[in-house]
Amino acid sequence: MLLSKLFIPITKDLPTEAKIKSHQLMIMTGMIKQSSAGIYSWLPLGFKVMKKIEKIVREEQNFIGAQEMLMPTIQSSEIWKESGRYDDYGEEMLRIKDRQGREMLYGPTNEELITDIFRSSVKSYKSLPQLLYHIQWKFRDEIRPRFGVMRCKEFYMKDAYSFDLSEEDAKKSYNKMFYSYLKTFERLGLKAIPMAADTGPIGGDLSHEFVILAETGESQIYADKNIFEINSNKYNFDDQSLNKMRDDFTKIYAVTDEKFSEAEFNKKVKKENQMKTKGIEVGHIFYFSDKYSKPMNCLIDDKNGKKTSVKMGSYGIGVSRLVGATIEANYNNNVMKWPKSISPFDVVIIPSISKNNKENLEKAEKIYKELKKQNIDVLLDDVDENMSNKFKKHDLIGVPYQIIIGSKSEKDKIEFKELNSKSEMLSFEKIKLKLKI
Amino acid sequence: MLLSKLFIPITKDLPTEAKIKSHQLMIMTGMIKQSSAGIYSWLPLGFKVMKKIEKIVREEQNFIGAQEMLMPTIQSSEIWKESGRYDDYGEEMLRIKDRQGREMLYGPTNEELITDIFRSSVKSYKSLPQLLYHIQWKFRDEIRPRFGVMRCKEFYMKDAYSFDLSEEDAKKSYNKMFYSYLKTFERLGLKAIPMAADTGPIGGDLSHEFVILAETGESQIYADKNIFEINSNKYNFDDQSLNKMRDDFTKIYAVTDEKFSEAEFNKKVKKENQMKTKGIEVGHIFYFSDKYSKPMNCLIDDKNGKKTSVKMGSYGIGVSRLVGATIEANYNNNVMKWPKSISPFDVVIIPSISKNNKENLEKAEKIYKELKKQNIDVLLDDVDENMSNKFKKHDLIGVPYQIIIGSKSEKDKIEFKELNSKSEMLSFEKIKLKLKI
Repeated sequence: MLLSKLFIPITKDLPTEAKIKSHQLMIMTGMIKQSSAGIYSWLPLGFKVMKKIEKIVREEQNFIGAQEMLMPTIQSSEIWKESGRYDDYGEEMLRIKDRQGREMLYGPTNEELITDIFRSSVKSYKSLPQLLYHIQWKFRDEIRPRFGVMRCKEFYMKDAYSFDLSEEDAKKSYNKMFYSYLKTFERLGLKAIPMAADTGPIGGDLSHEFVILAETGESQIYADKNIFEINSNKYNFDDQSLNKMRDDFTKIYAVTDEKFSEAEFNKKVKKENQMKTKGIEVGHIFYFSDKYSKPMNCLIDDKNGKKTSVKMGSYGIGVSRLVGATIEANYNNNVMKWPKSISPFDVVIIPSISKNNKENLEKAEKIYKELKKQNIDVLLDDVDENMSNKFKKHDLIGVPYQIIIGSKSEKDKIEFKELNSKSEMLSFEKIKLKLKI
Repeated sequence: MLLSKLFIPITKDLPTEAKIKSHQLMIMTGMIKQSSAGIYSWLPLGFKVMKKIEKIVREEQNFIGAQEMLMPTIQSSEIWKESGRYDDYGEEMLRIKDRQGREMLYGPTNEELITDIFRSSVKSYKSLPQLLYHIQWKFRDEIRPRFGVMRCKEFYMKDAYSFDLSEEDAKKSYNKMFYSYLKTFERLGLKAIPMAADTGPIGGDLSHEFVILAETGESQIYADKNIFEINSNKYNFDDQSLNKMRDDFTKIYAVTDEKFSEAEFNKKVKKENQMKTKGIEVGHIFYFSDKYSKPMNCLIDDKNGKKTSVKMGSYGIGVSRLVGATIEANYNNNVMKWPKSISPFDVVIIPSISKNNKENLEKAEKIYKELKKQNIDVLLDDVDENMSNKFKKHDLIGVPYQIIIGSKSEKDKIEFKELNSKSEMLSFEKIKLKLKI
């Protein structure tokens, strides 16, 4: 992609409400544009990052055997009345009347709808376990939307639902998702810690919030430092190993605000290991047994032909929020460096261009074509602007690798720079190898 | 994927309102489930097909240089008041009041929002032309939703928008989309004909509807048969060739109902070439000049520094509707055969299974693993059911190729069948070759 053609409205005009790094950066680099309070359009740069996150989330859901589907954004109030949440949910639910006066709503979550689908489709234990998920826009009518895409009204979320015959089986599904979440966040370059959490309006008796550390986080967290030392790669994808994994995480103290007790913290965690800090919630998993299946009459025949309420859990990852969270975790000292797995481009070529000398641009175009042939997603900064401004701009856009075509160019070597590191002179072959890792 | 694990609630219970083939088939094979009038959930089988269509649409948009972004579903009424369409649009627009009493709406289309984004971002002719698109859910509050996903309330649509300095340039953008649409529908295995059409609530003076022939279509069309003979592959992707392409299509009579005149039809088309039939609209493109940019004050500096309203067009493809339209075009005599490009699976393995003999299933599993290794998306029907029922079921699911493991199996040859053709005994190597085409 040529930068001159990319629809990327870079701006220095920040709205006063953009108070945190990720919100500011996303506006400055034209990743998003607010269309009304708490509602954003995703422009090409931001869209590309979000899609890459979505792809990783999808792959890790598919890996554990979850099946993708798609529920609509607009739901009928009827199923919410069945579960009893229609009145409970409060004003954050966007309530709508259609032209015929029917009560509808923009789904903030999908426990009711998936239960409705399931009860009409599955009747026997033989079809269990089932893991279903979708990645869809949700709406919460926040009274005070803030922090850009981190606490906005319309947000993009992966939510999965598990269906099992027994509590024991349901815990196995819970563990699979636990594992999937650890892998997902690791691929996104994030260190997300599962914390025992309150279940809130979803309900249930077992819940973990996946939290990344960040000063700007809204979650207050209390943890034993040792939880950061668990290597989640040592577990295999089998029931026994997954159970051990959850045990290993759960036996170390790590809780969010609502679960916190000072006395318990002091009793369980040595003073020198105590961490009190802030974090951003990027995922949340729940086991709530028959909280929805019972009132909604979602019954399964067990092996003896006896009807029993199916045991359910739900599992959310905030896909759009993760764009902001990743920036909070990676943007320091005016340099944003995207993790390779979700960078909007693999590499940017930055030629020094002047009116009298088009040689650098031509050289850059040649490299550009070569890299494209290798299926490397490359951005060419063909804009006529001085190099100092270009570097500042690319420190913000955050493509992790740069090829610089300027004064330093030698005959067979090209200046190559990884953000936050010194540049080096490399042959084109070596550069290709670096980019393909 | 094992059929026993796939969430595919096959049913014979058809709702009375399912009157056309595609609606019936999608319910019967568990592709969709209605959640409320005109609103559907996409279950895994339907979701897979829709995603494959989306991918082809995306690739052909990217090919012509359109950039993907994503606008939200919920819009503010303010921009619609600026364009003058807020009152015009009528009751089909789903109007919403948020908790603070602000007038919002669920976007039925995005001319206003994209114009708002563009006017705040682009100021100079140097950044033109621009082609932007998104693939997003839309809502129209149909008074009488019908035909399943073909005329529903919540639907998935690709809409693109072009921005140019002059009418002449804008026509070039129009031609690019015209070309992209022909290629897109061809890859979907559909013969879609561009018909001169009315512009309706979008407005403008140039418009084509892309229509596929189908008895169940809602569009009445009148055409000269010769329009089916134009080979759209003979045009190149350059301005001159694209202009000739539109000329070639436009000079042959082909119109929708609103543009039809009996006198003109008889004058321009020989009796033996006259076609009066029905079709399904799968795409619609519009050039409407400054209809939105003028009232919304979306101005561009031209080469002389003079401000001028940007010239715009919009271009829609109904992604979710195309799932239904493809079925209407391909489902005959109780056999549905998906085009290879969008089939939910590449091939299905159908072993004859009995309680005393698991040999066939084992053989099937071996082939299944081999094909998966080759990255072939394969479905294995591991359900214990008689072969006659299995064949009936797979005639409806519509995977175009079948590997049958039953009585006919020979030592080194396997029964292979393309839907609507006779089966043949082939070596595994030959089968792999067939599936990779």
